[in-house]
Order: sequence, then C-alpha cells, then structure tokens
Amino acid sequence: MNGRGPISCTERRDRLRLARTETIGPVTYAALMDRYGEAGKVLEALPNLAKRGGRATPLKLATVAEADRELEASEKLGAVLVTVGEPAFPPQLAAIDPPPPVLWLRGHPTLTLKPAVAIVGARIASAVGQRFARTLAAELGQAGYVITSGLARGVDGAAHEGSLGTGTVAVLAGGVDDVYPPEHARLHDQIVAQGCIVSENAVGRRATARDFPRRNRIISGLSLGVVVVEAEQRSGSLITARLAAEQGREVFAVPGSPLDPRARGTNDLIRQGATLCEGADDVLRTLHGLGGRLEEPQMDLFSEPARDQAAIDAAADRLRERVYALLSPTPVPRDEIVRAVGEPAPGVLAALVELSLANRCELLAGGLVARRD
Amino acid sequence: MNGRGPISCTERRDRLRLARTETIGPVTYAALMDRYGEAGKVLEALPNLAKRGGRATPLKLATVAEADRELEASEKLGAVLVTVGEPAFPPQLAAIDPPPPVLWLRGHPTLTLKPAVAIVGARIASAVGQRFARTLAAELGQAGYVITSGLARGVDGAAHEGSLGTGTVAVLAGGVDDVYPPEHARLHDQIVAQGCIVSENAVGRRATARDFPRRNRIISGLSLGVVVVEAEQRSGSLITARLAAEQGREVFAVPGSPLDPRARGTNDLIRQGATLCEGADDVLRTLHGLGGRLEEPQMDLFSEPARDQAAIDAAADRLRERVYALLSPTPVPRDEIVRAVGEPAPGVLAALVELSLANRCELLAGGLVARRD
Repeated sequence: MNGRGPISCTERRDRLRLARTETIGPVTYAALMDRYGEAGKVLEALPNLAKRGGRATPLKLATVAEADRELEASEKLGAVLVTVGEPAFPPQLAAIDPPPPVLWLRGHPTLTLKPAVAIVGARIASAVGQRFARTLAAELGQAGYVITSGLARGVDGAAHEGSLGTGTVAVLAGGVDDVYPPEHARLHDQIVAQGCIVSENAVGRRATARDFPRRNRIISGLSLGVVVVEAEQRSGSLITARLAAEQGREVFAVPGSPLDPRARGTNDLIRQGATLCEGADDVLRTLHGLGGRLEEPQMDLFSEPARDQAAIDAAADRLRERVYALLSPTPVPRDEIVRAVGEPAPGVLAALVELSLANRCELLAGGLVARRD
Repeated sequence: MNGRGPISCTERRDRLRLARTETIGPVTYAALMDRYGEAGKVLEALPNLAKRGGRATPLKLATVAEADRELEASEKLGAVLVTVGEPAFPPQLAAIDPPPPVLWLRGHPTLTLKPAVAIVGARIASAVGQRFARTLAAELGQAGYVITSGLARGVDGAAHEGSLGTGTVAVLAGGVDDVYPPEHARLHDQIVAQGCIVSENAVGRRATARDFPRRNRIISGLSLGVVVVEAEQRSGSLITARLAAEQGREVFAVPGSPLDPRARGTNDLIRQGATLCEGADDVLRTLHGLGGRLEEPQMDLFSEPARDQAAIDAAADRLRERVYALLSPTPVPRDEIVRAVGEPAPGVLAALVELSLANRCELLAGGLVARRD
C-alpha cells in the first residue's frame, strides 16, 4: 500500500467511497490502491475498468453524499475513520492479507496501536470459564497487553470486564453503535468511555450472519495471539483461532476435562498444535519472544504504474479473457493462474481485478480466486 | 543378551543368584551376562572381578540355598520366574535399557507377551477421573490391548477393574504376594485369577520407597504407551511418564481445567509434548502405526570373549584406575568416559563393571555412570 503519511479529508472520503462500492472487497481494494496510489484516481478509473472486465450494467460507485452521511453520523458519535496506510491504522491489522480497507474506532483509538491479545470463547460459558477469562484478561492487561474480543455473551464479555481498567478493544459485527447483546448495553458504554469499539461497518448497521467471519478476522488481526477459553466443537471461536493461525498469530487454548463438552473445541486446538494455556504465564512466555511487532507484508500487486494505455488495453482485453477461461467456481491460488497463463503477474492480476469488478470472479483472502457465474 | 532359547533350571537359579547378589544392578547384570554368556560362569568369575576392582571385603554371592528358598516360596503361590533372554520374558520390557534381570509372574504370564497400554494416575483421584480410567481401560481392552498399572488407589485400581475381563497386568513394588493397599485385597485376588501380577522382587518382600521408581520403570517398560489420567505436579505418575518417554514409549495425558489441581501434571505433560487423550481413539490412532512391536536393543557391551587372561589383567588394572580417576559423583555418559580414556570401549566398560562390583562406581540407567565414595 502506497503512502504511509497523513492524507487529506477528500482522499479519506474517497477511500470510504471505494470501500463501500459494490463488488469491491478488501483484495480488490488493495490491488486498485496499489495500482493507482489514490482512491480518487481509482474512482475515476473504476467504471471503465468494470466495463472492460465485461460488466453488463454500469458499476454504481458509492456517492459523495452517501459517504458524507456515513462520516457525519459516525463523527456525531465521536467515532473516527482510519484507512489502511494511515499512521493511525492498527499496525497488526495492516499486516493481514488483505486488511480491511476502512475501520471505525469509537472511544480511545490509540488502544488499537498497542500490542494486544484476543480472548474469545463460548457464549454459553461456565461460571469457571468466565472467571478464568476475566482473571486472564486482568493479568495480561497488567503485563501491558490490550485485550481484544467480540463483546458477545459469556467469555467475550468477561474478557472485556477484566480488562476495562488496563485497555480493552471490542470488535463489533454491526456498526460501532450496534448494542448487542442487550444485556451488554452497560458494558458497551463502559468500553466507549474507557476502551475502544471497532467496526468495519457503517454506523447504524445491524450485524448479519455474514458479518461475523469478517469481524472474527479483525479480532485476530488486531492481536499477537488468540486465547480460546471454552469452545464446543464447530464453534465460532474455533474459526477465530483458525484465522489467527492463517494470519501467523499465536493460538492458545485452555484445556478441560474430556467429559466437559465446552472443552472439546479447545482440546482439539491443543491436539492440532495450539499452545496449552493455564494462565497468563503461558501467554506471556510465548509472546515475549515476538516483541509485539509484526512486519507489514508487501502488497505490491502492481509493480509499475500503467503507461501507453491504448496498447496495454488491447493486450489486456485478450489476456483478461484467457484468465477468465482458466477460472472455476472452486477457489484456486492466484499464483496458479499466473503460472497457467504464462504472462507476467502484474498483468494477470490486473485482469483479475477487472473481472472482479464485473462480478465475473471473486478475489478471496489467502490469495485465492473463484469464478462467478 | 546371549541365548534366546530355553534355559536349564540350574542356569535360571544362577541368574536369580546373580540378580540377588549385592552391588549387581541391572546394568552390571547385563554387562556380565553379555561377557560370560551364562550366569554360572559369571558367579565363578565374580569374586575375582570384584577383588580386581579394588573391593576391600570379599563380594558375598547370593547362595544356592537363598535362591532355592525364593524359588520354592514363589512357586508355592503359583508364580513363575522369567529371566531376560528367555522366550517367556516380556518382549517390550526386554527392550528397555537395562531390563530388569528377573521377573516373577503370578496368574496368567502370557498376558505380559501381548501389546499393552499402561494407565496410571492420582491415588486420590476424582470420581470422574476414576470413571474415565475404567472406561478407557475397558475400551482399550476391547481393542485388543492388555492394560498395565500399579494396583495403587484411585486411577490404577479403576484401570485394573475396567480391564479384568480383557486382560490386566498389575506391577507391584513388593513381592507378588504383597497386598497393598488393603482395600485392594479383593482386586488383587481377581487379578491373580483373571490377569497377571508382576514383580521384580522376592515373595514376602514388602515395598519400600526405593522400590517404586523401579516398579514404575516396569509399568512403562511393559507398555507401548502410558496414559496419565489425573496427576498433580511432582507426582509419581509423572515419573512413570518421564520413564516411558526415555524408553521411547508413547506418552498420553488427559487434559483438565487449569483450576483443577489434579490436571496440573497432565496439562504440563501435554505442554511438554505428550499426546492429548480424550478417550481410547486418541490412543488407538497413535499406537496403530507402531504395530505393537519394538526392537530389542543391542546389549553388546563386550564384543569379544576374554583371552590370554594374565596379559589382559595387567593392562586392565592400569586402565581401571585411569577410568576411576575420570569419574565424579555427578553421573556422566559412559561413552564420554570411553572417549576421555581414549581406549577401546569394551576394555573401558569392563573396568567400569569391576569398579561397580567394588562399589567404587554405580552404573546407572540411560548409559550413565557415577563415582561412589
């Protein structure tokens, strides 16, 4: 991502427009920003790119008015917008591939810049599990780590409670004003006052099922490691753990008796290689060596700015259809497409971006791409 | 160890005498048997070897009468003696370094020839822990494994109870008639009737503190793997687990809540690399690949029979004192002594055996040796 310095309000609004435009997922966003450098230029180029990609109906950009409404409503709540590449964007989160393009932060945004550990687990947690989460959060907080979680019932709530005094970050699937579950209304207010509420989505947005996986990616992405306290098999916390592992973050799991169904998921994680966690010491020992820093990956999908546009376009048209022919509904690595085409990667990736704008393919996290029909 | 065929009653009695002679531990026993081939020849050579080693008082051999008394008393109980190298000696146990020289088996001795899994754990086990041990023993029994344990209170007793019908082996620290704890008198009888009682010690011998580590070595040595069900930190079951790991056996541990002190030891084991065990499947999956067979290690401490005794003796005397000078009370690998002396290994090891007979050094398991003063 180009430009790590401060940006103008117009550019920030353009980035928000770009992020809110249909078919623009985080992968496409990153690829376009990398190619054009500024959201304003991307927005200019976008209708034409989509058309070249083979889009039947014109691509509808998010309007200035829509972006202004989102900005005004959020800022009324005291929330601030940060976009990838800005200094205020959480560095751990910027390191995931792809990072969420924009983020709303409500409360104390600088908490998201500090080394953090996520504590997640069962919604229907045992009293012992909740106590464990609360104590662990307090101890890791005293050791200097911010605690990240999802403000859900059970383990999440206990983790926030335990770390209110030292630094707690709640990532919501809805907007930063989406108070859910209702019994956490007071805790939500306390986090606004003492901690930080984070969301990728606009104010006023209520969470839907498909928002939760993206929310979980941000919880793990903000954190050096994820501790799973209680989890049944096939539960959401295990997805967060898997995402953490994919992001190269440490995964910790609290063991339990084989006769306790809430230990099934955590015992499974340990069997799969998660670090066994009996308390803060296990987490601190592992994270100590990491020093709280991760590298931001290179996102140079496009290595050179485009020149001699007419000639390039003609070649790109042919290349794009060759690329499209190689895609199938089963996701495959983009590298594989590059190899199969036998052309330089930047051109192939540009073709994929254009196809995605036309809704003819989907750029997925983890470097994958799938055909859309 | 030479000679894997059947042996005469005299040779068996001589092996018992050798095993019961002072200063003869399992390492010395193995080295001497390897050198002389027969216990009768070792007994002949022993007084002189001890004298050469620098022993002040003559070495007192266990007498024929003493051995006969032990044989008669044990055989009255229906127990049989097996010695290392005989076909009836448990093959897994013969593979440990060093194996116990002799073993009394009471009940159904052939059970010790089958693939076995040890289940051990806390004496003061929870009801849940005991139930887990009983069920696990029954399930592994149904899968074809004999269950080995120590007949202690708690987990051990439950493991035997669960496997009475499929095959259970109890290894005692005292003799095969040492009924302990008293509340396991009935279980002891049931094991004699349906399973097998195993002991390294003579009938009539009551267990002392120093017998337990040797007993634990036999429990793990008889087994392809050891499952630890509940264990506090620094408990005997953890020693069994460590011995199992040293013997190259699989170690399994049943996890538990960090708030349960009886899970401290097992969680620690998992952290150190033990396989997490939530039930029989975890054990079966791991042991499946092993096929229930382990290799018997080579015990060729002495590669050639001694010849031209006079010349050898003179050189050996000098070598022995050079070896002794290199020893210290801190155990060191015997290989290191060999390297430090710069002489061929067989001569150095012969010197160590003679020194041990003179009580001037101790040959320890794991290839170590320490000076004795």
